[in-house]
Amino acid sequence: MIAPDFTLDSRLSADTVHLGDLALSRVLLMDDARFPWLILVPRVADVSEITDLPEDEAAALWREIRLAAGVMQSLAKPDKINVGALGNMVAQLHVHVIGRFRSDPAWPGPVWGFGTRTPYPLHARAQLAERAGALFAAA
Amino acid sequence: MIAPDFTLDSRLSADTVHLGDLALSRVLLMDDARFPWLILVPRVADVSEITDLPEDEAAALWREIRLAAGVMQSLAKPDKINVGALGNMVAQLHVHVIGRFRSDPAWPGPVWGFGTRTPYPLHARAQLAERAGALFAAA
Repeated sequence: MIAPDFTLDSRLSADTVHLGDLALSRVLLMDDARFPWLILVPRVADVSEITDLPEDEAAALWREIRLAAGVMQSLAKPDKINVGALGNMVAQLHVHVIGRFRSDPAWPGPVWGFGTRTPYPLHARAQLAERAGALFAAA
Repeated sequence: MIAPDFTLDSRLSADTVHLGDLALSRVLLMDDARFPWLILVPRVADVSEITDLPEDEAAALWREIRLAAGVMQSLAKPDKINVGALGNMVAQLHVHVIGRFRSDPAWPGPVWGFGTRTPYPLHARAQLAERAGALFAAA
């Protein structure tokens, strides 16, 4: 059977900005001004769990998760980084890399399901996306 | 400087049962009957973020996360696995591998910070710990 092409889940694309693609993953910026928040989506069809990926793709994903965590450190200098692969709402495998601050509204709880997404002002979003893109390119 | 020996954070040890040790990580079972829940704690001092680990230890952690996810599949046959490294409450690097069910009380939200931990009955906990230990040994 030929696997269908990779298509980004519509709920992921609706709430995010596409920053670019790494070797394996699409990189998204969550359009939520409350938290600096990246999402990695392996460009592979029909995977939901990290154990669904073959060895080499799993290794690439881990490399990209660590890369994104480094970018988040530089981008936002957070007090803590939260990394999570949940998928309770969107089954398509995706990994969150979120910068957390003691001063953020959800601290110390998780951000998933917390309150209401607050889109960035458009000029701020463009600027942040550009900075994040530059950091990925330099990493 | 000589790094101090690994010591498990007291909040992690208070809520869990020690199942055993993998090459890198201590494996804990969260004593919460609401969710089948494993925690991996790399036996390394003074690490908080996944980017704090050198390459080889990071690779070992990823291997053990995927191993634990496989054990969780066999142990609980969950609808979804949630993997997360948060550390907002306990800074010591630790990774959650949680079996989630559409029927569990927190679904589809995250389990962290949700309601109150419900310890297993002692006999059930011993049995689950034994099964999980056997699955890790066989993996």
